[in-house]
Amino acid sequence: MLLAALRKEVLAANVELVERGLVLFTFGNASGIARGKGLVAIKPSGVPYDELTPESIVVTDLDGKVVDGKLRPSSDLRTHLELYKHFPNIGGVAHTHSEAASAWAQAQRPIPCFGTTHADYFHGPVPVTPPLSPEEIAGDYEKATGEVICRAFAGSDPDATPAVLVAGHAPFTWGPDVAAAAHNAVILEYVARMAMATVTINPAALPLAHALHDKHFFRKHGKHAYYGQAAAQ
Amino acid sequence: MLLAALRKEVLAANVELVERGLVLFTFGNASGIARGKGLVAIKPSGVPYDELTPESIVVTDLDGKVVDGKLRPSSDLRTHLELYKHFPNIGGVAHTHSEAASAWAQAQRPIPCFGTTHADYFHGPVPVTPPLSPEEIAGDYEKATGEVICRAFAGSDPDATPAVLVAGHAPFTWGPDVAAAAHNAVILEYVARMAMATVTINPAALPLAHALHDKHFFRKHGKHAYYGQAAAQ
Amino acid sequence: MLLAALRKEVLAANVELVERGLVLFTFGNASGIARGKGLVAIKPSGVPYDELTPESIVVTDLDGKVVDGKLRPSSDLRTHLELYKHFPNIGGVAHTHSEAASAWAQAQRPIPCFGTTHADYFHGPVPVTPPLSPEEIAGDYEKATGEVICRAFAGSDPDATPAVLVAGHAPFTWGPDVAAAAHNAVILEYVARMAMATVTINPAALPLAHALHDKHFFRKHGKHAYYGQAAAQ
Amino acid sequence: MLLAALRKEVLAANVELVERGLVLFTFGNASGIARGKGLVAIKPSGVPYDELTPESIVVTDLDGKVVDGKLRPSSDLRTHLELYKHFPNIGGVAHTHSEAASAWAQAQRPIPCFGTTHADYFHGPVPVTPPLSPEEIAGDYEKATGEVICRAFAGSDPDATPAVLVAGHAPFTWGPDVAAAAHNAVILEYVARMAMATVTINPAALPLAHALHDKHFFRKHGKHAYYGQAAAQ
Repeated sequence: MLLAALRKEVLAANVELVERGLVLFTFGNASGIARGKGLVAIKPSGVPYDELTPESIVVTDLDGKVVDGKLRPSSDLRTHLELYKHFPNIGGVAHTHSEAASAWAQAQRPIPCFGTTHADYFHGPVPVTPPLSPEEIAGDYEKATGEVICRAFAGSDPDATPAVLVAGHAPFTWGPDVAAAAHNAVILEYVARMAMATVTINPAALPLAHALHDKHFFRKHGKHAYYGQAAAQ
Repeated sequence: MLLAALRKEVLAANVELVERGLVLFTFGNASGIARGKGLVAIKPSGVPYDELTPESIVVTDLDGKVVDGKLRPSSDLRTHLELYKHFPNIGGVAHTHSEAASAWAQAQRPIPCFGTTHADYFHGPVPVTPPLSPEEIAGDYEKATGEVICRAFAGSDPDATPAVLVAGHAPFTWGPDVAAAAHNAVILEYVARMAMATVTINPAALPLAHALHDKHFFRKHGKHAYYGQAAAQ
Repeated sequence: MLLAALRKEVLAANVELVERGLVLFTFGNASGIARGKGLVAIKPSGVPYDELTPESIVVTDLDGKVVDGKLRPSSDLRTHLELYKHFPNIGGVAHTHSEAASAWAQAQRPIPCFGTTHADYFHGPVPVTPPLSPEEIAGDYEKATGEVICRAFAGSDPDATPAVLVAGHAPFTWGPDVAAAAHNAVILEYVARMAMATVTINPAALPLAHALHDKHFFRKHGKHAYYGQAAAQ
Repeated sequence: MLLAALRKEVLAANVELVERGLVLFTFGNASGIARGKGLVAIKPSGVPYDELTPESIVVTDLDGKVVDGKLRPSSDLRTHLELYKHFPNIGGVAHTHSEAASAWAQAQRPIPCFGTTHADYFHGPVPVTPPLSPEEIAGDYEKATGEVICRAFAGSDPDATPAVLVAGHAPFTWGPDVAAAAHNAVILEYVARMAMATVTINPAALPLAHALHDKHFFRKHGKHAYYGQAAAQ
């Protein structure tokens, strides 16, 4: 993929996060990767969204070295890089402080799969990371944040559950490209709001039965999917 | 009714669901039936709302066979068809994942009639379906969803309570035509939000007294109605 | 006051309720009174707000007889009339099913005065009416609703607390004119939302101390007021 | 700083509070100080926001005497003046009745630091003042409000936690200039909403670990900051 095209996609995904109401001021960032080139395009740090242009998107290598662009990359860059290194199928990452998903992260509770809206997108609960140690916080904090996300997915499939809550912080989402990562951030916020409403109505609410969870997930994902116009007939 | 007119009505009702904030991305669908012809017009599956045109609305027979239209119908078509078969007076069906009504469905709690806003539209609580069996989920799932809705109305009148919560899933509403079905989806979401607020304020809140419930329902419905300009004088 | 001017004011107040998000579809109504003429101008029943014109506002006498206008008055007219008869200083009445205030009405809990925002407008808790008897509901229901509101104010001053929650129903507000009645409906909804949030954060939250409650109320009301440009210097 | 420039900044900050949805009707006010001149520019009392012009902003000295402007200053002026006298580094103050922050004030609970969004802006919990005594309320109430805020910060740094909840009332925020004060009011409301959601999800939620709290605060503040384009390299 040409870097110019990737930058445009990354810009569009960052703007999508704003337009969907997931971002206040300069919070949040989205990135995309050109796997063949080993290059990542990410929002610059602390720049107002209405000043973003394709040229302002920063391009770095997988070590975080800026290879193109005049601005400093998002301070969360190293978290994104860890995800790209450990989740080989993902092409984009999004990070927001969206209200309800961040509240679950602050409550340090995984989001249970209470219904089919969740099951359509996330296979199983959205996990919450274990806390970082004081040493990890004092060291390369943003890299350690990426590592603790990867630890939360040990033994499970990040492609089937493209979202995580970083304990005491906020969500990260991902997907095959940066547009999908931003899309999943929007879905996650909606699912988080509905889950909060669910426990408000019934504090003893039970997760969805496994059979129904799988039904909805596989109705939209994998070779037996039959949702949408592009699904196998 | 001409199919062209039905398609326009179905398109307008689907757009109404979006404009009222009940729909995220491509979630949700509304359909209408031409009873005389035995034909149903429904939103296509997974198509963005701003790409919908009257021609993109899919027309099927009551067995779900597409008789007009180039796209695949909504994956929830068979649920709509069951409702048309078992509820003989309805002319339209709407399905959304609207936030508060879906939260009640996820909480697997019927929405109690806490006040006159509810009583103006729904006679009695909005019921929640029993769960589907693993066999029903593994089989013709969308048809089984329609069947379980009908079972939830065994012995009660779907025309007096034109809404249901499918357990762990989301609401369906209906009415004399597709516009009424969409209208009832809007009302249901409002009633669901108010009911959630009611139990937040007072977890021991009691349902409305029967006399007041009936008063409000029959003020707007049936031969003694006196609300609005068209009511009997 | 000329009736033409009163109709315009009543129309503007009804539109204000919509623009402030207090009204869904055709719910809600506002009226004003020309005390000298003994005439009340009120929204017609069940007419969409965007079709309202000054001419569509219905004028009745204090017995509810239409003296001018081609449409039927709001079905809640008789409630308004009771308030005009018993609260001699009020010039306007507003009724909505606004979400949070109606939730308090459904929860059958008065809204405690938790803070200065409330104290700036309402002296003491916003009361909730006792329930209507089956006989009152079966009889002249809307008149009985007005009567039960008046009973809720026996011994207290409706001018100092221009709002009430009708149990299991929704709020009514009033004021010196119809614009003030609508303004108080907006404030009441805001206060109701904040009170719900307050009990969510702290279920044991205590009402404001009397001294602070009085301070804020009398900072804006009465002969020692010093808020705003028109206050006594 | 020229007074004309300060008035424009104060006007812009007051408008920002409205555009961010923190202000209903004429609630709320923001001010800025020209330290060298000992002059404060503040919103006039009770004037609708859409009628505000730079000329309508009132200029007073630190005793509250109007030195320029034809209108009466905000009734909360004396609270602002106390903050300017006791917090020597601040250049602006904002006061709103924003919904969630006021609900915490009404609940008389400090906002715990539940996550990094809070830690990015406020070092430690956002404190709630002790209640005012009846004597303070009956005396120079607005001045006493400022004094009780200052008492709440005895032994802690107002520059590191530029926000307070006045018990039973609402928040005040501040910053190096009036724009920063308004910015902090927006952040405070967001943090307050997320904290309320956090305790809704998990009533036993714990505050953020100190190490992570400090990490985020000092990532954006002080000489080791590395967030944004202007941070030390």
